[in-house]
Amino acid sequence: MNLKEYLQRRSRLVDEALERWVPGESEFPPQVHQAMRYSLFAGGKRLRPILTLASTEAVGGRMVDALPLACSMELIHTYSLIHDDLPAMDDDDLRRGKPTNHKVFGEALAILAGDGLLTEAFHLATRPDLMKEVSPSRRIRALWHLARAAGSLGMVGGQTMDILTQGKEVEAPILEYIHTHKTGALITASVAMGAIVGGASAREYKALMGYGENLGLAFQITDDLLDVEGEEGKLGKAVRKDQSKGKATYPALFGINESRLRAERLMKEALACLDSFNRRANPLREISQFILKRTN
Amino acid sequence: MNLKEYLQRRSRLVDEALERWVPGESEFPPQVHQAMRYSLFAGGKRLRPILTLASTEAVGGRMVDALPLACSMELIHTYSLIHDDLPAMDDDDLRRGKPTNHKVFGEALAILAGDGLLTEAFHLATRPDLMKEVSPSRRIRALWHLARAAGSLGMVGGQTMDILTQGKEVEAPILEYIHTHKTGALITASVAMGAIVGGASAREYKALMGYGENLGLAFQITDDLLDVEGEEGKLGKAVRKDQSKGKATYPALFGINESRLRAERLMKEALACLDSFNRRANPLREISQFILKRTN
Repeated sequence: MNLKEYLQRRSRLVDEALERWVPGESEFPPQVHQAMRYSLFAGGKRLRPILTLASTEAVGGRMVDALPLACSMELIHTYSLIHDDLPAMDDDDLRRGKPTNHKVFGEALAILAGDGLLTEAFHLATRPDLMKEVSPSRRIRALWHLARAAGSLGMVGGQTMDILTQGKEVEAPILEYIHTHKTGALITASVAMGAIVGGASAREYKALMGYGENLGLAFQITDDLLDVEGEEGKLGKAVRKDQSKGKATYPALFGINESRLRAERLMKEALACLDSFNRRANPLREISQFILKRTN
Repeated sequence: MNLKEYLQRRSRLVDEALERWVPGESEFPPQVHQAMRYSLFAGGKRLRPILTLASTEAVGGRMVDALPLACSMELIHTYSLIHDDLPAMDDDDLRRGKPTNHKVFGEALAILAGDGLLTEAFHLATRPDLMKEVSPSRRIRALWHLARAAGSLGMVGGQTMDILTQGKEVEAPILEYIHTHKTGALITASVAMGAIVGGASAREYKALMGYGENLGLAFQITDDLLDVEGEEGKLGKAVRKDQSKGKATYPALFGINESRLRAERLMKEALACLDSFNRRANPLREISQFILKRTN
């Protein structure tokens, strides 16, 4: 398979669905919908929703059934970026090469746009006109994963520790907590939701959770590595900002070589979780390679 | 019935459920859970969750089935107060007689506590160990109401207009939009969720939605009146702050007498919506009187 083409096709599918389902800029009040859409269509790679779709494919489910939940995941990811960038949090001016949400719309609207996107994730996922072919109990089970991964026992917990440890010495277990919760939780949940909606067996579900957990941690390690080694132009955001903010990172704690080895080991484990799957899991296999080798 | 006792009993029920179901202060990371619980247990009247329970009662449903969604509603109400109080929004120091969340925990944690509470609302409402007697499709229908009322087409939209119109001349239709969305939407959804989970017929559902809509608007008008006429000690927050912030209010636009008449008229309409209900709707009837006559 041609991964680049695959990712382009899938991300177009997600973009079109978001365009269709998220309230437009003409909906009242336009200001908050403009702010929500500004960050939602700022050029994200749609990695999380693509994982949801690929996970559904891997168990033989229909992508169309997973598309609303895939979009919900992207809405939550986008809200988290807006709130993380706020002056009271990471205080970032640039995101994906563009001014951050609060730089364009002001802090109040940026907070509200984040709140709006987070809530829209659950609004979209419960709409009576969507997912009619998915049993309501599967839908609730998938939503539970989304909410758990995004909340104070997941991503919000990870971001809390990320903020609280800035400028402090951080030991490996706390760094691992931050990584598995701030980034890993949503990535694992992306895979889990696709599996559930696609009708995974208990065995398939367990295997895909293993894939998602390894992938999530490897993703954050490669993200840390890009911050150290990447080029500002390609990333669309400042590099070496983790260091300048006194943030704990894998390379800072374990060195660049050890971090890269760790990411490769995790990816191998992720791939091993897919051993019992047929070629329908090839997109998931290729995506893990793509994450390991990405340059932005 | 003795309304005061009724409200005490119901609010204790909600408090105990929140205590049981919301992650405790010992859950990692403790800081965000402390911040979440600080505002959650700051002495709210639990009006919205009580409306959900009373609405379930009114259609002959079981309160225990509605309790998780009632708690979800209170979680969303609490998050909205934390974010509304932030320096970038209303910049309030006092809420229910106590320092606001960001005054105690700082802005970053207050934003995260709000995000955590909002997400916990959907986490709690989708937990596999709760609401086992409620059909999953009813549960999703109720959740859709919650998400729609809380999002950018509901409360977040209302708060957006509230912020954007501060210090400006506001005409009646915009003031009405702010009131029906910022406060009214959650109150209507509280009633709607109780009706759905309690198994309301289409006719009962429609009547209860009418009750909720009238009640919601009347609630905000009495809130505006309290800000003008109330005593700081009883309210636990600064009075006349709407005026000092240049906020649009009913009394400012229509005068105190006309506002009070409007609230009374809306309450009469709310009561009329309950005409076809038997005495099981008495709590809903009494609550509307209580809201009209409240002093805090």
